[in-house]
Amino acid sequence: MALRWYTTVIDCQDPRSLGAWWAEALQWTNVHDAEDEYVIIPSWVTPEDIRTTPWGRQGPGLVFVKVPGPKITKNRLHLDFAPHTSQDRTAEIARLKALGAHRVDVGQDADVSWTVLADPEGNEFCVLSSREM
Amino acid sequence: MALRWYTTVIDCQDPRSLGAWWAEALQWTNVHDAEDEYVIIPSWVTPEDIRTTPWGRQGPGLVFVKVPGPKITKNRLHLDFAPHTSQDRTAEIARLKALGAHRVDVGQDADVSWTVLADPEGNEFCVLSSREM
Repeated sequence: MALRWYTTVIDCQDPRSLGAWWAEALQWTNVHDAEDEYVIIPSWVTPEDIRTTPWGRQGPGLVFVKVPGPKITKNRLHLDFAPHTSQDRTAEIARLKALGAHRVDVGQDADVSWTVLADPEGNEFCVLSSREM
Repeated sequence: MALRWYTTVIDCQDPRSLGAWWAEALQWTNVHDAEDEYVIIPSWVTPEDIRTTPWGRQGPGLVFVKVPGPKITKNRLHLDFAPHTSQDRTAEIARLKALGAHRVDVGQDADVSWTVLADPEGNEFCVLSSREM
């Protein structure tokens, strides 16, 4: 393929603070730390992977960049995360909330299988039902 | 890790139309096609990869879901794509525009190395400078 997905960019007010929050939330690694840009990648990805594998070349990271304005509406793009087991799910939601995530109502029904949370700048994300694979 | 990045979700007015557009743009494969949800994954990912590898388990796909309202402001999250060579870059931008992408001004400087485009529903994305790896 001539184009590859290089990374996902998240506009924010404070890249260092929000990026470090997500590194802690996902247990990922910070690989670039500047005032206006903070980059994290999964801790299991090596530089060798990025150079030599299709999945390493598909940018696996998150890039936090500084923008002037705050978030003003529900994000049009969001990330979904899955726990391995239902015990993990409960523990992970508690851990994320202890870190500063909060539950949000985006109009979802009461009985959906996922939980909608928001990060400290209000970016919505979901913790899905658990799945082993 | 107890949580893994399962997928990236894009709210849209017409999941099937927009999802098919992105499948063509990225030369990815459609793996779920319903009125309210359309899923694409990289064509090089196999079901075996998804079951057995950390990078397959890190949701490599895009999920398009139907929402009531249109996009109303610049997206807070966006995807960046990289071509392999500068020739690829020119060709890919021309191909994306021929498919229906259009250039957008999000306040970027005139001399930045990336090109900001939007998909048919206005979702911004960038084509970065070329990079071999």
